[in-house]
Order: sequence, then structure tokens, then C-alpha cells
Amino acid sequence: MAGTTLDDYTDRYARRVRGMKASEIRALFAVASRPEVVSLAGGAPYITALPLDAVGEMLGRLGSEHGATTLQYGIGQGTLELREGICEVMALSGIDAACGASPDDVVVTVGGQQALDLVARLFLDPGDVVLAEGPTYVGALGVFQAAQAQVVHVPMDSDGLIPEALEAAIAEQARTGRRVKFLYTIPTYQNPTGVTLTEERRERVLDICERAGLLVIEDDPYGQLGFEGEAPAPLRARRREGVFYLGTFSKTFAPGLRVGWILAPHAVRDKLVIASEAQILCPSGYAQAAVATYLNTMPWREQLKVYREVYRERRDALLDALTDLMPEGTSWTRPGGGLFVWATLPAGLDSKAMMPRAVAARVAYVPGTGFYADGSGGGHMRLNFSFPPPERIREGVRRLAGVMEQEIATRQVFGAVRGEGPRRRAGSDTPGPALA
Amino acid sequence: MAGTTLDDYTDRYARRVRGMKASEIRALFAVASRPEVVSLAGGAPYITALPLDAVGEMLGRLGSEHGATTLQYGIGQGTLELREGICEVMALSGIDAACGASPDDVVVTVGGQQALDLVARLFLDPGDVVLAEGPTYVGALGVFQAAQAQVVHVPMDSDGLIPEALEAAIAEQARTGRRVKFLYTIPTYQNPTGVTLTEERRERVLDICERAGLLVIEDDPYGQLGFEGEAPAPLRARRREGVFYLGTFSKTFAPGLRVGWILAPHAVRDKLVIASEAQILCPSGYAQAAVATYLNTMPWREQLKVYREVYRERRDALLDALTDLMPEGTSWTRPGGGLFVWATLPAGLDSKAMMPRAVAARVAYVPGTGFYADGSGGGHMRLNFSFPPPERIREGVRRLAGVMEQEIATRQVFGAVRGEGPRRRAGSDTPGPALA
Repeated sequence: MAGTTLDDYTDRYARRVRGMKASEIRALFAVASRPEVVSLAGGAPYITALPLDAVGEMLGRLGSEHGATTLQYGIGQGTLELREGICEVMALSGIDAACGASPDDVVVTVGGQQALDLVARLFLDPGDVVLAEGPTYVGALGVFQAAQAQVVHVPMDSDGLIPEALEAAIAEQARTGRRVKFLYTIPTYQNPTGVTLTEERRERVLDICERAGLLVIEDDPYGQLGFEGEAPAPLRARRREGVFYLGTFSKTFAPGLRVGWILAPHAVRDKLVIASEAQILCPSGYAQAAVATYLNTMPWREQLKVYREVYRERRDALLDALTDLMPEGTSWTRPGGGLFVWATLPAGLDSKAMMPRAVAARVAYVPGTGFYADGSGGGHMRLNFSFPPPERIREGVRRLAGVMEQEIATRQVFGAVRGEGPRRRAGSDTPGPALA
Repeated sequence: MAGTTLDDYTDRYARRVRGMKASEIRALFAVASRPEVVSLAGGAPYITALPLDAVGEMLGRLGSEHGATTLQYGIGQGTLELREGICEVMALSGIDAACGASPDDVVVTVGGQQALDLVARLFLDPGDVVLAEGPTYVGALGVFQAAQAQVVHVPMDSDGLIPEALEAAIAEQARTGRRVKFLYTIPTYQNPTGVTLTEERRERVLDICERAGLLVIEDDPYGQLGFEGEAPAPLRARRREGVFYLGTFSKTFAPGLRVGWILAPHAVRDKLVIASEAQILCPSGYAQAAVATYLNTMPWREQLKVYREVYRERRDALLDALTDLMPEGTSWTRPGGGLFVWATLPAGLDSKAMMPRAVAARVAYVPGTGFYADGSGGGHMRLNFSFPPPERIREGVRRLAGVMEQEIATRQVFGAVRGEGPRRRAGSDTPGPALA
């Protein structure tokens, strides 16, 4: 088998091998991480806002004083100590004992990503349909692709997922006889749009899914990072059954520890544990101890406020810069929390085609196409404000605006018809006006 | 959906949910971890043999001095620093640049378990057949079950997997028209038998798989834990293509960090990275930095010697105790390394049925049935010697021998026919004599 090629492996063993495609975001990280580039492309928290000396001291003691347990194997579900801490964190969002949340129904995972993958692994068969916001989290698209499921996007507007569009999508799938398994949704400070599903729509979306017999997968990485008061209560706080709640410490503590969780309906919690054991045997005992000790001994609620304050200032810097510098015809969301702004370009501009020129101008973003399973979204881009400091954000927007002005000028010189371009391709690519 | 049951989820969404079954080992851990029980059931390394003060100090600095990178997101493949370290570790076993091993083809995983799961996810379709030693690693059975593949066991003797039996199994599968994707093998200090595939058989097994077009998944968690000189070179050291090599730091450093790896054929390495990103986004930056720094700054080769010395002493304690205390008709393997001894009970005894009485006598082991996909293996048990100290091992064997004597006496009183029992059920349950 010397010199075996990818084709050999694909043809002989599994066509799936060829089907695995990298996200567009991934290729960006290499260029976007060069120091001269202002990256608005990532989704990284501002770790430097943590008290790293105190965190380091805590991490050291977990090795020297508790290494015999923290460095050892653990159980698949995760430690009780951490699951109790997770319940405290969820209670802050209104998911408490009164609505049936219990450490017994929490499964600790390798970040929110594994939480989502486990649900997909348990429930999705090849060819199943998953409903998801359009646009949605790029990593979720990767999970559903790996499960050989098909994503059908449900349009959003500035109030989040549109309930009528959800009903229409369910009806359309029923008409074509395809099997819809669940709705995957990020209702609060959504990735990539920053939009939050309104109070009133939350109940309607839950009712629609309940009537249709759809599970709801609620992904909530950003819910505690609001800048303007409390977000509406999570979907899981409103229903005990039928909602899988996915959480993570990646945005509120540190992504490098890779600790997330699922709060699962009681009947299937044990099956998720078995699926997780097949994937990773058990989550890291050391990382679990780190998060549990952080929650038990350090002022994590105060740290949430620090993150919120830092991100609010950066969001304002981004919004101000966009207002001051963006060419006419550009619009964007005004997130009440989270890490991202979703921008809609002037008609005719294509964020994917423009990307190499943006990188040449030392600014990076994620083209909207990364957030749609069908490759639409070219008229949009995602801009991150959690990682770069305010002055870098403004400089990034300045560079980006320059690239866009030049694109517009080029199009005019070469006679492209304004108001028309390659980006208006699919139904899922039309939330622009509603989100603007 | 109030009061939704497992049946509701199973019937409505995926039969797979009901099919996910916990391993027998898992249920044991709760009882086996009680302090009054001598547990010969686990597979835990003796973490206390590590210099925990120095490790703790290192872990602390990774947070306080390098937290901005170690606690942040990383790339899916894992850090170059760690992948270079992994290549040094593999070179010690003979897998070096001369046989094509390169950091570029290493994918860092969440322990060896995720490494195996990724290969299964990429290559296995439901209904595919996987060949594996009989008995084999219980966690591998979980992976293949989750992939809806069928495991066909290939018998072993004291020289490891029997090449003629491998050929026969391949021929039998071809006759029935089933699709065999790969051979999963632990050639060195195997789990659960402790047996090592001989030098001569390694070449024959590779030739047979090559001719049949089977991939080889070589799992090597124990290869550097030999007590009597060097083990034969890994399969991957003998072939550049067609062999996926899975490694882990769980046995040679610390399982609580959950760091393992795959060395993949170049053509598919990138696809494994994409599959891993869909599962976990990226491995823990902190855990990777911990292992890389351990390899770069601490005497890891000396630590391997410490582990070997501790385990050799404990293996000897186990073998001596078995010789001194076991009832007539019991036999066992004599491993040259690793963590386990595989014992074959006197005819008529059933290790699974005996387990509750063993726990009542404050000793635990893993019944042989856990290591066969078809539930055979009841005439055997796995005994771990890496975790309990020598005097506890002897005490455990004493308790176990007492339970066995009583079982034998009970059978005689109630007239069970000796030499015949429930355990001789399937072809895969017959390596006993050859392994004895």
C-alpha cells in the first residue's frame, strides 16, 4: 500500500472520508493570527481579563496537593463537585431545581462542541433534517455534516428566529416526507448575529416544536454575557422535557480547559454518558477540578461582570467605528451581549471574494458563507469584538472600510450593476433587511 | 412532553438510543472504589509515582505565566510543540523519521479513546465488520458499538493474535459477503491479556492485512512499560502506509489530562483533524502545554523507568500470589509489561456470576465477559496490578481465592458436573488453554 492516496482510502473504505470538509473559518486562523493583522475573525474570549496569577496558583495546587485524584481517571459523567457547580451557574440564568435541573442530569463534556456532537450522535441518522437559524454557528454545521444530516435554515430578524418561518419549514419538510429530528438554536446573543430571541417568541418557538414533536437543542454559550440587563430566561427554564441545554465555560472562564456540559432530559442522560464514554472515556479530571475550584473559591460572578464590562466597551467601539467609517449601504446588528456583530454589505459586495484583499490590508473577518450549510451568506460578514482592544477594533474597521470602498469603486469602473451581485442566491440569504 | 420516558425518545427519534449499553466495567467502578475493597478491577496508573510537587509547580506556571495562550482556544490538530514531543516519544519505540513519522501527521486527541473513535467515525459504516483480538479492550468495543459495527474476535495464544485464525476470519467474512474494514489490535502487553505479539507474527499479521486490503489500527498504550527488555518494534515502525498508530500519555504520564494521539497515514491526516474539530473543536491547550512542558523540561525517560520498576514489582507480587494461593485448575498469563494479567478459572466457574460474592468478600476484578462483544469470556477475569501496592495485591488474591474455593465447594455440594459449565459458549471463548 506504499504511496496510498486519499482516493485509495476513500474508494476502498468510506466515501465519508472525502466528504469531511474543513470550515472556511479554519483556513482563516493561520493568516488572522499574524500580529500585523487586526483580526475581527475569531471568537476568542479576552483571557487576559482573568486574574492569571491567582488562577495559576490554584492550578498548581491542583497538581501538587491533589494530583493523585485530579491527574487520575474519573467517571464518564463528570465529577459531582463540578456538576453541582454547574447547577449553581445555571441557576443564575433561571435554570434551577424548581424547573427540574439537578446535578444528576448534567453530563460534563469537552467544551460545548462535544455536548452538541453527543446529541447528534445519539439522535441523528444519515439523511435526517436539522432545523437551525440562518445563519448559525459554524461548528454546529460541522457536527451535522459529520452526522450526515442535512441542515435547513430558518430565517431570523432582529427579534431572532421567525416563528412563522419555523412553522413553514416544518410543514415543508413534512410535505417532502423528510424526517426532522430537532431544532438547533442559540436563542441568546446568537453566534454569528448577536441577536436575541424575544420573550414572546420563546414561548411560540417552544409551542411549535412541542406540537411538531421536535426536540430543541438550546446552545447557550453567551447568555451570561449581556450588557444591558438580564436576557430573557433560557428555553430550558420554561420546559422540563424536550429541551437539551448546552453550556460551556469557554466564554465565561477559559476555553483552553475545554469544559462544557449538557443538561439532558432525565430519561436519556445515561445514554449520553455512555456515548461520551465511547468518545473520550471520561472528561479531564484536572480540568474539571480547575473549573470546580474556580467556582468554589474564586469570585466567578464578579469575573462575569468584568467580562461584560470589557465586552460592552468593545462592542461600543465596534458599533461607533462602523457608524463613523462604513460605506453607505452597509448595515449591522446591535447585540445586547455576546461576542459578535453581523454586518450586511452594500449590494453587490461579496465578503468571501473580498477576503484576500482584506487580509492584504491587514484585517480579517469571517465571510457570511461560513454560517450557512448551503454556502449562501456572501453578502454578510461576522465581526468579533471580544478579543481586540477598542483602538485595534477601530483600526480594523478603518482598514475594512477602505477595502470595501475600493471594492465599490472597482465595481463601478468595471461596470458591475450596483444593487445586484453574486450574493443573492438562496432563500436562507435573505434575513439581511430584517436584521439591518 | 411532560414525563417523557426513554421509550418515547427511542421510539420517536432513534433506536440507537436504546442500543447504547454501558460496559460491565463501568458498573463495577462504584463498588470497586470503596476503600475496604481491594480493587484488581481498574486500569489506573500509579500517579503517586510522579514527582507531584514538581508537576504542580509546572502546572501553576502554565497558568500564571502562559495563561493567555494555554487557557485560550487552539487549533484542531494540536500544538506543534506537543506534536514534536510526541514524535520524540514514538522514536523511543522505533517509530521515527526514517519510517515516515512526522509532527505533521500527528493529530492530538482526548486520550487514546478519542483517537480510536475518530478512526471509527471516519471509516466505519453501520454493519461493517471489525476484526479484533478475543479478548480485547472494553473501550474499543464501546466505540465499535457506537459506530453500529460488528466485532469479530480473532483468537490469541501466548504469542498473541494467531495469524492462521486471522486468515480464517477474513476468509469467513468474505464467504458471507460482509465488509471488513480493519483489524484493531493491541500487539504489545495487550489489554486485557498482557500478551505480546511475537516478532515473527508481526510481519505475518501485517502481510495478511495488506493482502486482504485491511487497515490496521495499532493501539499502543503500554509499549513503553516493558519489564524485561525491549518489546518488538510496533507495527507502524514496519509499515508507512495502512497502519494507524494510536498513542496516549495516560499510562506513561497522567490520564487526568486526557492527552493521546494518532499518527495517521499522510493522505487522511487532515480528514481526522476535521472529524476531531466536529467532535471537540480543539484539544485542551492547557493539557497540551502540560504534556509538552513535561516532555521538554522534566526527566520523562527516567519516569518511564520508575513506572516500569513499580509495575514489575507489582506484577511479580500478583504472579507470586496467584501461584501460592489460587485453587487448582486456575491458570494465568505472565505479562512482560503493561498493567494486566488474564486469569482462566477452574472449569465450571463463572466470573460474572461470582462477582457479587467477590465484592461481598471485598475484592473486585473485571469478569472476562466485558472483553468480548458476544458476552463470552465468563471463564476468565482480568486482574490489574498497576494501582494497588504489592501487599494489597496479595490480600486481594487471598480474598479472591477464598471466594473461588467456596464456589467450587458449593458446586460440588449441589452436584454440578466439574469440567462443564456455562462458560464454554462460543468460539471466541477458547483461547484459554493456549493462553494458560
